[in-house]
Amino acid sequence: MVIEEMPEQDCLAVLKAARMAHLACAKDGRPYIVPITIAVAEHSIYSFSLPGQKIEWMRANPHVCLQVDDFGKGGGWKSVVVNGAFVELPDRIGSKLEREHAWSLLSAHANWWEPGALKPVTSAIPPQHLFYKITIDTMTGRHAVPQ
Amino acid sequence: MVIEEMPEQDCLAVLKAARMAHLACAKDGRPYIVPITIAVAEHSIYSFSLPGQKIEWMRANPHVCLQVDDFGKGGGWKSVVVNGAFVELPDRIGSKLEREHAWSLLSAHANWWEPGALKPVTSAIPPQHLFYKITIDTMTGRHAVPQ
Repeated sequence: MVIEEMPEQDCLAVLKAARMAHLACAKDGRPYIVPITIAVAEHSIYSFSLPGQKIEWMRANPHVCLQVDDFGKGGGWKSVVVNGAFVELPDRIGSKLEREHAWSLLSAHANWWEPGALKPVTSAIPPQHLFYKITIDTMTGRHAVPQ
Repeated sequence: MVIEEMPEQDCLAVLKAARMAHLACAKDGRPYIVPITIAVAEHSIYSFSLPGQKIEWMRANPHVCLQVDDFGKGGGWKSVVVNGAFVELPDRIGSKLEREHAWSLLSAHANWWEPGALKPVTSAIPPQHLFYKITIDTMTGRHAVPQ
């Protein structure tokens, strides 16, 4: 097994193929990490969420870090880490088209019960999904390749 | 599919069964996330690493967040999130026994090529592994159960 850095185009390919990622945000020096459902297009990473801790934290501090794993056969793996910024896509003029684009990409494979999609049912009030994108500032990756 | 909170004993069971986790640390308002190899005993999460960004950041700010996934069959999943603190286990009196305990647990299943275990080979100098533990401050979990 050899571990190597991956070129950016390979990192982007791993990102585009991923349905799930791990997202970290931070507030007052404390990190928070959650699994999320993603869809990637044009160097933006789209996702959605119900209101909650991660949305509150990212609104207060848009710096985020996102990581994607890709486990192959025979012990090989790829890991991509993105440093980026949270941008909310509210349901109003200016972000409506991008919000609909995000939903069309995400709804192609996201199921409501997947991590990040829904919270435990605690109320009969229909949930209000929020859409957002992560813009990519830097992206690095490593892979372990069987020899 | 129903999503529910998990009781603490179930969270701990997921944690103890895990070999891999995602760890987030933070510095100057910026989060950083990496996959790591873990072993859990007596409410401490043990891991090891080569020197690098995450170790530097955790030495500067010991607040960390660790998350473990457990994907079952039929779309079910469990996710456990731990808020805790980084404690380095240096190779000297005071932490030597715990460091050896950590290594005995980790070496039972960790391979050098796994995420978090090694970096890309850039030098012939033998790598110097660092051992650390994450103490658990709070632990929460959710699971999606097929109906």
